[in-house]
Amino acid sequence: MVVQQPIRIALVGLGTVGSGVIRLIENNAALIADRAGRPLEIVAINARDRSRPRECDISAYRWIDDPLSLPGDADVDLIVEMVGGEAGLALDLARASLSAGKGFVTANKAMIAHHGQELGRLAEQHGAPLRYEAAVAGGIPVIKGLREGLAANRIERIYGILNGTCNYILSVMEREGRDFADVLADAQKLGYAEADPSFDIDGVDAAHKLAILSAIAFGGALDFEGVAIGGIRPVIAADIAQARALGYRIRLLGMARYEDGALFQRVQPYLVPLDHPLANIEGSTNAVVAEGDFVGRVLLQGAGAGDGPTASAVVADLIDIARGQSARPFAVPVADMTAYSRADSGERFGKSYIRFAVADRPGVLAEITAAMRDAEVSIESLIQTEKSDDGSVLIALVTHDCHERQISASLEGLESSTSLTAPPVVMHLLSDRD
Amino acid sequence: MVVQQPIRIALVGLGTVGSGVIRLIENNAALIADRAGRPLEIVAINARDRSRPRECDISAYRWIDDPLSLPGDADVDLIVEMVGGEAGLALDLARASLSAGKGFVTANKAMIAHHGQELGRLAEQHGAPLRYEAAVAGGIPVIKGLREGLAANRIERIYGILNGTCNYILSVMEREGRDFADVLADAQKLGYAEADPSFDIDGVDAAHKLAILSAIAFGGALDFEGVAIGGIRPVIAADIAQARALGYRIRLLGMARYEDGALFQRVQPYLVPLDHPLANIEGSTNAVVAEGDFVGRVLLQGAGAGDGPTASAVVADLIDIARGQSARPFAVPVADMTAYSRADSGERFGKSYIRFAVADRPGVLAEITAAMRDAEVSIESLIQTEKSDDGSVLIALVTHDCHERQISASLEGLESSTSLTAPPVVMHLLSDRD
Repeated sequence: MVVQQPIRIALVGLGTVGSGVIRLIENNAALIADRAGRPLEIVAINARDRSRPRECDISAYRWIDDPLSLPGDADVDLIVEMVGGEAGLALDLARASLSAGKGFVTANKAMIAHHGQELGRLAEQHGAPLRYEAAVAGGIPVIKGLREGLAANRIERIYGILNGTCNYILSVMEREGRDFADVLADAQKLGYAEADPSFDIDGVDAAHKLAILSAIAFGGALDFEGVAIGGIRPVIAADIAQARALGYRIRLLGMARYEDGALFQRVQPYLVPLDHPLANIEGSTNAVVAEGDFVGRVLLQGAGAGDGPTASAVVADLIDIARGQSARPFAVPVADMTAYSRADSGERFGKSYIRFAVADRPGVLAEITAAMRDAEVSIESLIQTEKSDDGSVLIALVTHDCHERQISASLEGLESSTSLTAPPVVMHLLSDRD
Repeated sequence: MVVQQPIRIALVGLGTVGSGVIRLIENNAALIADRAGRPLEIVAINARDRSRPRECDISAYRWIDDPLSLPGDADVDLIVEMVGGEAGLALDLARASLSAGKGFVTANKAMIAHHGQELGRLAEQHGAPLRYEAAVAGGIPVIKGLREGLAANRIERIYGILNGTCNYILSVMEREGRDFADVLADAQKLGYAEADPSFDIDGVDAAHKLAILSAIAFGGALDFEGVAIGGIRPVIAADIAQARALGYRIRLLGMARYEDGALFQRVQPYLVPLDHPLANIEGSTNAVVAEGDFVGRVLLQGAGAGDGPTASAVVADLIDIARGQSARPFAVPVADMTAYSRADSGERFGKSYIRFAVADRPGVLAEITAAMRDAEVSIESLIQTEKSDDGSVLIALVTHDCHERQISASLEGLESSTSLTAPPVVMHLLSDRD
């Protein structure tokens, strides 16, 4: 084999994932060189704290004090950013690297969701590769799968389980019949959830990923602000039990569809039919479904986080660059990524699950059903369950197919009601129309 | 957008899949040109019979009488072969195209499984792209996923449901409690199985795909002859019911593992635990699981056949080539694909399911259990079911963990027995050790 010049990599950020990248490049060096056609060589590293204990030995690598000197370093071909954060150092480094014509590889979903187009434009202008496979769904090659593997298709819909923490919590809640706060506390102790879990459980992390996927799938502009975001805090054990009795599992889904010139993007807990592949995704696994006009439904599933899977995706990007596979940063040229209008969620049509917490007194059910009737929402099934700890009674119902606008109208009709002890919780039932 | 030169394609073979490629390129022309950076243009076509009715209008395309003139045609950049067959025209065309430095795209698993290395070498010598994503698992981007998306990993095992016809038949057998021959006849009427179904149901088609996947996953030489091949003909409704009662579904799996310098490749019906993702793959869907040292377990699933999914994969290859993404034909240079030794299946360790058909007379069970004891095979569970139509009694058992060599030995001990009315059927229980 002809020995080729190594590709010279600077690595900025040496937390769990950065350390994982070093370990992967060290462990699989020969195999990677054979597949890439040339070795990957880490020639410089930087992190906030040089002396912090790490899961890899960094003493052999050249330490750089100022990461922003790397784009100007003639001995560096490419910069791997494992710092994180929507802006700050990560963004400064991305701009400087791409402007200097150097490749840039990142796992930073927040930065790509917010600044991906600006960076993509820089990458195209300067002929510098920009890759971010690790930003979505960990080690699952979903960006490549969409941008290249399904490139021949008009993608009709892309959706999936994009946050492992939420899926883990929902899985445990279902298996053990426990409530959200309780399971979250355990997950934090076990390291499955962050000390500040808000980005995960309130749906922001999934929304970052969804915005990236939908830009690639539909060729439109990145529109993170257009994602309607909900999380799993409102889900209680009774919802999960109720859904299960009806033949569904609750999963936090990111859902994007492009139709009639408008883009719909939402992150929300959905009731997923038990015979749908996403209902069987347990624990912290991620899964993405893409539906194309020729390929039909394709599902990709795997570990959505963790140092190993994330490093796998980062190094796959490095190997592509080393091979000279110069895919564009997005599926189409950045100049062609037009801003689509946002679809009106009120127009969406399907069944919904609504759970009310109400005072235990006569007439409440009549009040709720009258509000539904006034909005012309027809009820498919209704269950009144036992009292909760605070003395409220739970009423869960599933509507027949209707427009979401009608659901909103029916709930507006109940806004001034003194019978409701908490705001109603609405979740949609996943169907082919979503 | 700067208009780039189109990539000029000659299409040979206009059956269902060839017609699907034409329809896809016509329907999604603008979208494909935007993603590929240049239009795909079909400049010449050929098939055995020009006048046969087809699902697409071919009158606008230049008809070529001699497909073997295409490699020498200066107006053709790339040849798409949709003829099929291990050798013959397909192979002649592949050799001539690659030798002439022209790209070659195919869905021909038999040809790649048998002649992939010779063709890969030609592709490398002449700098001509050779792509065959559609040869394995239809529209699922599994070749790309393995070769590029998981390229950073040492792949430990690759396995999956690689034949949609078999999975369809097994799914219907389970759902309706019917026997193999009956369901096959129906599947043939519905077009889900070929008039001559042998390639599918006897495991040859899955073995072609497995050999290709394992060469890419492990970087070894293509070794189709090294695949131990079994099909689904021996599976009866009672096996499926029995497996289900034990918490398993029967699925025809292709299984490949590289370990300690030896390659194990087998196609066989396995008992798959109900909580394994492959147990939930119903109907003609395909699914491939790859397990890598950093990424963990990744599963890709989708339609494994049909004109739409196959055309999706073919055109994805064309778009890659149009983009100048010059991946090598295999994961490593062909010269580095070394022939691994074949692992001894007798050394494999796990649980097995064995079903006997025996005469209804005293002492038979003693005879079987004595043979198992003599081979030191310990029995975990044993069920004697009702008589079958021919008066035989079925005995189904599951062994404790043992070496497959011991199973063979126990069955050899029964070879001369007059109690068995048919050869025993052995299926292994899928575990992490397979």
